[in-house]
Amino acid sequence: MSDSPFERRTRAAQARLRERDAAALALFPSPNTYYLGGVHEEPGERHFFLFVPASGDPVFVVPELYGAQVRDATWVDDVRTWVDDADPLAVVDDALADCGVEDGTVLLDPTMHARFTLDLRDVRPDCEFALADAVLSELRVRKDDAELDALRRAGRAADAAMRDVRDLGADAVGMTESELARYVEERLVAHGGTGTSFEPIVASGPNAANPHHGHGEREIGAGDPVTLDFGTHVNHYPSDQTRTVVFAGDPPEGYAEAHEAVVDAHHAAVDAVEPGVPAEDVDAAARDVLEAAGYGEAFVHRTGHGVGLDVHEEPYIVAGNDRVLEEGMVFSVEPGVYLEGRWGVRVEDLVVVTADGCERLNDTPRGWRV
Amino acid sequence: MSDSPFERRTRAAQARLRERDAAALALFPSPNTYYLGGVHEEPGERHFFLFVPASGDPVFVVPELYGAQVRDATWVDDVRTWVDDADPLAVVDDALADCGVEDGTVLLDPTMHARFTLDLRDVRPDCEFALADAVLSELRVRKDDAELDALRRAGRAADAAMRDVRDLGADAVGMTESELARYVEERLVAHGGTGTSFEPIVASGPNAANPHHGHGEREIGAGDPVTLDFGTHVNHYPSDQTRTVVFAGDPPEGYAEAHEAVVDAHHAAVDAVEPGVPAEDVDAAARDVLEAAGYGEAFVHRTGHGVGLDVHEEPYIVAGNDRVLEEGMVFSVEPGVYLEGRWGVRVEDLVVVTADGCERLNDTPRGWRV
Repeated sequence: MSDSPFERRTRAAQARLRERDAAALALFPSPNTYYLGGVHEEPGERHFFLFVPASGDPVFVVPELYGAQVRDATWVDDVRTWVDDADPLAVVDDALADCGVEDGTVLLDPTMHARFTLDLRDVRPDCEFALADAVLSELRVRKDDAELDALRRAGRAADAAMRDVRDLGADAVGMTESELARYVEERLVAHGGTGTSFEPIVASGPNAANPHHGHGEREIGAGDPVTLDFGTHVNHYPSDQTRTVVFAGDPPEGYAEAHEAVVDAHHAAVDAVEPGVPAEDVDAAARDVLEAAGYGEAFVHRTGHGVGLDVHEEPYIVAGNDRVLEEGMVFSVEPGVYLEGRWGVRVEDLVVVTADGCERLNDTPRGWRV
Repeated sequence: MSDSPFERRTRAAQARLRERDAAALALFPSPNTYYLGGVHEEPGERHFFLFVPASGDPVFVVPELYGAQVRDATWVDDVRTWVDDADPLAVVDDALADCGVEDGTVLLDPTMHARFTLDLRDVRPDCEFALADAVLSELRVRKDDAELDALRRAGRAADAAMRDVRDLGADAVGMTESELARYVEERLVAHGGTGTSFEPIVASGPNAANPHHGHGEREIGAGDPVTLDFGTHVNHYPSDQTRTVVFAGDPPEGYAEAHEAVVDAHHAAVDAVEPGVPAEDVDAAARDVLEAAGYGEAFVHRTGHGVGLDVHEEPYIVAGNDRVLEEGMVFSVEPGVYLEGRWGVRVEDLVVVTADGCERLNDTPRGWRV
């Protein structure tokens, strides 16, 4: 018997399909195809599906060009290919028939392109089509050991890169944000990461007052607070952490106090994490600290977001989300304070919910002095 | 009256909708949304549509968060927003009603996510849904002046970066492929490009025998042929060109002859380009030269692909494609020779079909000596 985490996840998904009386999942290249099939691929123009019936074994239908690499990557035995001159829908039709899917409800990968959604409808006009969200996100929200291992390693690579950035000290003064972003990218890879999990944020001085600023041609000056928010991938799982530092000189008036309040809010939120706590309570824990310190209006976003194969996924740590935290959930805790035209502060770690609290996936100094 | 190229394209698309007796286009963030609406956005989880009825004026439905930036970017007057707590489908329902879409055929953006495709089906159960491919790709395949201007500028930025890479000369020896790729990225931006139009290919020595090699940790040696295939964006339009060079020392046996044959094949294919010629004839022109020189088996891919808002689009320059070239089409001409375990050669320029031939969008030396 296979001990593949991918097969275990697939069997769990099948149990959920049966509970819902659905006939099958129809996935196309997405994080879900990796999660169940072990195959990481970008969406393309060619027909590429993973069909998971409610019972029995799944079937890949992929372009011949991808046959060898899919067979190498997956635990799924039945990998069918179609060549460029052939009709892929004939292969799809056979695969669905062998999966026992003639009518009933087929749950679609939520990002499946219309090109393929309409083809599946044409091949199975008697089926109902709905989204696979409910089945898959409920599985994906609790991370298994293989996932936690990858997330921990991605976190360590980001932490090592953050230490390198801090070590620049006064040498960072005079660099442009984009130059520093390129250095970040280089260090993430040097520490074993694969690419970046999102475009790095290097927001200096007043640019840091915009939580969505990426990086630009502004030169970092002495005394500038600089928000550094970045991550990389390990085995397709991302890291995501933030520090706000001052590379040289003295920060602007009021900045040190705001930074201290953000760090306090960050710790208060992390301390609030344990199984059984509603997600909104973690948000409130951070928000209460910042409101008490007079920064309530300046904390303009939610406290965090789930992190897994997607860098933004369930659970969202936000007011109004009464979803209860469970062991194995992973999310960011990232309160911030933003003063228009002046500066910003954000401090972010990822945490995983454990049996009696949480484990941080990041561990570098949180102070603003480098 | 607006002289916006986006409005002109939209009016042309509406004429095609009426010819086909279709009710509307339903677009979501994709190159098509930019092509008609002037709005460049990545697909997300929030409902974001551009509806183009067969007659009358188009309507955007976007999250409130995007309202200001969409209004800034587009010529479309009717931009409706929905706030996070509201039901976006109520806004969609109204917008479709105001577009006169109650039944009839709605043509979907081919990459629309299933999440939204299924929602549109629920909002308009009496509509038929098909793909917008035929309407849009026929418009997009012939580039207008605004598009050609962007493509020429993107080409010049890539050419300037290629000259910088050649100027490295012997200094490139000892760099890893990935280091040189990073230098390429930096030079593309320095010359006015935005990012890269695809992950740069820096394939040295035997790595160049794989046409899909990206870049890795191999160090470039003296005498190594190095394939350099890269591009950037200007106004969302890409460049894409390839040169194969030897930075220092003497190339391997047989390489100079193969390189000469590839350059000859490249020129023969470019010379074959003019309106009225089938795309497959351009492929044959390159292939004939390489076959005559004994490299027929080593030329393992098609001669080229169309380039526009997508870096791979119609027309494909490949055997079996009898589509006739028309003025304004833009595509790559990129014959190559690949010898497993040894080296590879590829020489690529983009061309635009003119009234009596073609114009190259790239113009740097094609020889292997730097």
